[in-house]
Amino acid sequence: MGDCRWETDPWKIVETGFDARDGRACRAAESLFSLGNGAMGGRANFEEYFGGESLQGNYIGGVYYPDKTRVGWWKNGYPEYFAKVLNSAFWPGMDLYIGGERLDLAVCEVEGFRRELDMRRGLLTREFTAVLPQSGARVAIEARRVVSMAEVELGAVAYRLTLLSGGDAEVVATAFVEGDVRNEDANYDEKFWELSDLDRERCALTMRTRKTGFEVCWGQRTRVRYGEVAVVGENVSAAELGAGQSVVVEKFVGVASSLNHPAGELVDAACRVAERACGAGFEAVLAAHERAWAERWKGCDVVIGGDERAQQGIRFCIYQLLQTYTGRDARLNVGPKGFTGEKYGGSTYWDTEAYCLPFYLATCGEEVARQLLLYRYRQLPQAIENAEKLGFSDGAALYPMVTMTGEECHNEWEITFEEIHRNGAIAYAIYNFCRYTGRQDYLSEGGAEVLVGIARFWAQRATWSEPKGRYVILGVTGPNEYENNVNNNWYTNYLATWCLRYAAEVVERVAVPGVTARERERWVEIAEGMLLPELVVNEAGETIFLQQEGYMDKEQRRAADIPAEQRPINQHWSWDRILRSCFIKQADVLQGLYFFQEHFDREVIARNFDFYEPRTVHESSLSPCVHSILASLTGRAEKAYELYLRTVRLDLDDYNREVHEGLHITSMAGSWLSVVEGFGGVRVGGDGRLRIEPRLPEGWSSLAFRIHYRGAILSVAIRPGEVAVGSENAAKAEMVIDGNLYEIGNEKITVKIG
Amino acid sequence: MGDCRWETDPWKIVETGFDARDGRACRAAESLFSLGNGAMGGRANFEEYFGGESLQGNYIGGVYYPDKTRVGWWKNGYPEYFAKVLNSAFWPGMDLYIGGERLDLAVCEVEGFRRELDMRRGLLTREFTAVLPQSGARVAIEARRVVSMAEVELGAVAYRLTLLSGGDAEVVATAFVEGDVRNEDANYDEKFWELSDLDRERCALTMRTRKTGFEVCWGQRTRVRYGEVAVVGENVSAAELGAGQSVVVEKFVGVASSLNHPAGELVDAACRVAERACGAGFEAVLAAHERAWAERWKGCDVVIGGDERAQQGIRFCIYQLLQTYTGRDARLNVGPKGFTGEKYGGSTYWDTEAYCLPFYLATCGEEVARQLLLYRYRQLPQAIENAEKLGFSDGAALYPMVTMTGEECHNEWEITFEEIHRNGAIAYAIYNFCRYTGRQDYLSEGGAEVLVGIARFWAQRATWSEPKGRYVILGVTGPNEYENNVNNNWYTNYLATWCLRYAAEVVERVAVPGVTARERERWVEIAEGMLLPELVVNEAGETIFLQQEGYMDKEQRRAADIPAEQRPINQHWSWDRILRSCFIKQADVLQGLYFFQEHFDREVIARNFDFYEPRTVHESSLSPCVHSILASLTGRAEKAYELYLRTVRLDLDDYNREVHEGLHITSMAGSWLSVVEGFGGVRVGGDGRLRIEPRLPEGWSSLAFRIHYRGAILSVAIRPGEVAVGSENAAKAEMVIDGNLYEIGNEKITVKIG
Repeated sequence: MGDCRWETDPWKIVETGFDARDGRACRAAESLFSLGNGAMGGRANFEEYFGGESLQGNYIGGVYYPDKTRVGWWKNGYPEYFAKVLNSAFWPGMDLYIGGERLDLAVCEVEGFRRELDMRRGLLTREFTAVLPQSGARVAIEARRVVSMAEVELGAVAYRLTLLSGGDAEVVATAFVEGDVRNEDANYDEKFWELSDLDRERCALTMRTRKTGFEVCWGQRTRVRYGEVAVVGENVSAAELGAGQSVVVEKFVGVASSLNHPAGELVDAACRVAERACGAGFEAVLAAHERAWAERWKGCDVVIGGDERAQQGIRFCIYQLLQTYTGRDARLNVGPKGFTGEKYGGSTYWDTEAYCLPFYLATCGEEVARQLLLYRYRQLPQAIENAEKLGFSDGAALYPMVTMTGEECHNEWEITFEEIHRNGAIAYAIYNFCRYTGRQDYLSEGGAEVLVGIARFWAQRATWSEPKGRYVILGVTGPNEYENNVNNNWYTNYLATWCLRYAAEVVERVAVPGVTARERERWVEIAEGMLLPELVVNEAGETIFLQQEGYMDKEQRRAADIPAEQRPINQHWSWDRILRSCFIKQADVLQGLYFFQEHFDREVIARNFDFYEPRTVHESSLSPCVHSILASLTGRAEKAYELYLRTVRLDLDDYNREVHEGLHITSMAGSWLSVVEGFGGVRVGGDGRLRIEPRLPEGWSSLAFRIHYRGAILSVAIRPGEVAVGSENAAKAEMVIDGNLYEIGNEKITVKIG
Repeated sequence: MGDCRWETDPWKIVETGFDARDGRACRAAESLFSLGNGAMGGRANFEEYFGGESLQGNYIGGVYYPDKTRVGWWKNGYPEYFAKVLNSAFWPGMDLYIGGERLDLAVCEVEGFRRELDMRRGLLTREFTAVLPQSGARVAIEARRVVSMAEVELGAVAYRLTLLSGGDAEVVATAFVEGDVRNEDANYDEKFWELSDLDRERCALTMRTRKTGFEVCWGQRTRVRYGEVAVVGENVSAAELGAGQSVVVEKFVGVASSLNHPAGELVDAACRVAERACGAGFEAVLAAHERAWAERWKGCDVVIGGDERAQQGIRFCIYQLLQTYTGRDARLNVGPKGFTGEKYGGSTYWDTEAYCLPFYLATCGEEVARQLLLYRYRQLPQAIENAEKLGFSDGAALYPMVTMTGEECHNEWEITFEEIHRNGAIAYAIYNFCRYTGRQDYLSEGGAEVLVGIARFWAQRATWSEPKGRYVILGVTGPNEYENNVNNNWYTNYLATWCLRYAAEVVERVAVPGVTARERERWVEIAEGMLLPELVVNEAGETIFLQQEGYMDKEQRRAADIPAEQRPINQHWSWDRILRSCFIKQADVLQGLYFFQEHFDREVIARNFDFYEPRTVHESSLSPCVHSILASLTGRAEKAYELYLRTVRLDLDDYNREVHEGLHITSMAGSWLSVVEGFGGVRVGGDGRLRIEPRLPEGWSSLAFRIHYRGAILSVAIRPGEVAVGSENAAKAEMVIDGNLYEIGNEKITVKIG
């Protein structure tokens, strides 16, 4: 287990104590206390100057930079750039001088430090007392910050400084927005922003991104109180304070980008937001923000009885997901690190379809989830173009592995050209959406077109092998990225056959221009002829699905036998050694068994789980959740709980020692899946029926959660031996509990379970 | 066939005509007319200012820069840098103004342009008449240049300008060395050099490389004649010329580097060389240079009767190889582009052992070739360290794929980690050297140590496959780089077994501390248990060696069926499409059959040739020569000649449209092999006997060549139906001709062959 510095609290993350010399811890806290509202967000950098280690990060959804990536050996079809999420202007800035001495926690003595993220309210608070090294003056600080969920272009800070002792002192407070920022991750150490306009009179800063030409304006308004004197509109203010006296600076920053406003109107837009908020004051801004958060939590909280760490962990996951994506804007998606860091470039991966979509479907409802499908639908032309670049034709679509705008922007051939299973996950998401919502009409609103493009890709990508007398898929990378360029990866091949069959079935129902009966038949023929490698594992001749051809030629070892000091292996072993080992980075065959669990007997799933789990090192954050769900499903309760804790507290406990780089946002959806699908046993099967089959971990006295399902918000309360379900709104729903079908209405029904 | 602009001449490359607007042609000529002397060299950039397209290139052996390469996704074990050969100061520089107007072939009207490389003398000459656009003055230029083969730190230019018409004019000539140069290939557009010292009085420029800290001093001396007036020592000189009058500037540049001199003595060393040469004058420098070249040609010329294009081609290859590597300095090696361009970074590849070593063995003798072995022997500690980085232990050595100093400096995992067959080529070179020279004592002088390190690598790199009941080698890239990460590449596996057996045999003869009988036995056991994939190709059950497991799962097509406009495929297809195709970049199985031709029946070789040749696109310059030799060996004479022309005139005819980047130096050794081993049928077999089995191409009336062999310089003259052999020096040698053993002495013997 990692190292947890946070108090266990069901609704809060609380940090007490502070050590400026521990740079990694300083950066880790900045990640964990991040704030966002779906449109923008940022790391919990201190408002005031900090001379210690820090990763400044403030990000605006959809504003990116195509960083030059063309270095060394280049080959046709490689993408021209690597899209980077942009660290943008530092808007919460507040510079403080007390008697001419700058407040800097890197040099002050700090007492009573407490930082708190209230996840119910979306509020970041920081309190401490600082002793200034030269004057010895003691000041108490209380800083509160929100990135408004009610008004997505607004960030606000309330910053109170109280002089505790040290004689009278002049306090100078400067509220600022700093636009001269850099990305830590910049291939050529280039700056990504340039100044577009600085309007001192209106206190508005407009920056422009290089190459992409996005413009963003930050308009700032402040409201200052020295003792009883209120001042509005001064960014720099100075006053003489006596002991016990305070100064309070409230600052409001409107952030308007050219994604949403004509370029000429950015200053107006940003200033309007800041002015309105400033007029209302911080408490009013906070109240509106809290109401918006309360609304969001209403349909999706999870309450765990008897396990505070698990409770805190799952709330943290839900909180982060809610503030990363709101579904308000179909041009946005869910970056693996959300608004909490630069890594993975803030781009879209298959994480969205495989993990996040079911989360948003169940917690935010159909309309939010549909936006994620629309995102890919709108990028279908680029996916077709991407496939053409690689040599495919006739409308075959290969969605990019990593994207901002639909173009591929990752730069490893073994990923972009070979990790083609992502195409399957995008098809699966359409199926999943239709199955969960019952909205088969989505197929005629774009779904079928995407499925056709994907099916055409698989049909061209499969090769007829004369020696094997089967269709094969050569040279792929499966979800297990610890091997590249393998042949007949079971997951990929199975997913491809499923895509081909599903697309064939859909085009029978929904006409798609240009698809002939002959093409449809060919999809089915390829699906039926596909090689799906298996391995006999016991004398009874029972088999498992083989991850890829030749996997058993490797030396077979167990992850448990890797010495602890060599874990994670990706930080200790050469890439060569990792490639040659049998160790699996993340669920691969098991990912397929999770997606298609209705296709297989539980014994088959169990046999595969028992084979692959010992070989899996779970060095992707996306891995333990899938294993946890399958462990629950197959009755491996202890294992399920062990894997769950690893996923749900991955960041809080910093298992992989990388939280300083940001949070694992998309895998948090996996954590939620482990609770609701794993322990809760909630699943909409192939027949479209919602089922529940609870499997509470040992030590949990209860598990309650709410989910959106076909218009209803269902509340589910599980206790050992029983499950109670009701509808929280007017809508009714059907549910299969313990094999019997029930109609759920406002009246809660309780069913005893075996 | 490419586009040949050169007159066919047995000893010269001649360019007539010039078009400044054709930038690619300008650059291509700069490559083809390159000069070098093993220690330094450069492209044939014009001495005078040229406003057209040009790739300036002057290179000093062993002076490199570790360019930053860490971009994007990084994994443990990746090299930290990519070594670049450095474009260094432009020493031949000569700036000319006629009546205030600068001479620039990009804007002048040019008449009678003739550029000539005299390969016998190592002399570059250029003559033309230029009409200046503003004044209309006509000037005739004759420029001669050498990079001295007699004095390796010396370059010299004799530049004559004659005013033909246009009235009297002041001519100002400035001889200069320009240190402010860049590499075209620089990942971060950084400069690699900084000024160390500029001594105007002594006319010496000292530059220092960033990071590596190499210092190089260029000292310049000039000697100018205006009409009858001789001036020594003025770099800038001006005089009034009348029609028909000339100015001649001779410039001499000494180039001294910190590789060879203490840093404090560089200026002295460079100036001493320049002064001495200046004292002697250009004609004397040229004479000494020509004597050195005559000496070099004495033991290695090839004369082809009845085929001028082939004749010119092979002389060009030999010439380039002789000026790229002289064996004077065991710290140097043979970069794929020699001193003719930046590409491939000027580093050492397996090309040296597989292609160049047999060339230098036979053309320059044992001492020169031994230097190439010593280069690797001295880098054994780094090869062991390289293997350790990847997770190997106990003295296993993996030589780098690309290196300057013994460290790996390429940056693609599929090459550095996986193209491990290079390790075998390095072992094979030791075997080849001992076999050819009979000097088994080299084994105890370092050879055996290298073999042990290599054998240990293979022993650890092979894996016991339970399902196959054989040792396997997984995840490699064979010589065919159009597939990566394949399992059981026949060439790699066969080479590994050979290395293990050879090392086991050698350590029985030569004690190597630390090698136990048990270890030795294990090498043999692994060699004997190795999987060597085969494929049945006809109903008689005859087999070929299969390039790698699964190769036949690919769609089988013929290279001949690729439309011409898609060739070379590496310029037209995506890397993804190439990887998925069956097309082979370069000899792979056939490379093994070439190395080990004595192990196989000719029918087996023929069967493999017939299978692989149609699938091979020969997009490595190293490929056609090997195929040509095997075609000769198996009686496919027409194919052998076709492939030979493709290799020997690759650059002259610019088949791959890339000569503007530099010449394919290492593959020129392959061209020589196609002549001497292929058509000449010269080979030292496993029994250590020199054999000759001529197979003249149709249309060649004769083929004569000289080779060094065990102290003797043998001259071989082949005509249809007979071969005549004699020893040119006092040494005698034995040779098997047409199955009979002969002793060769001064007296030429002629043997009729059937």
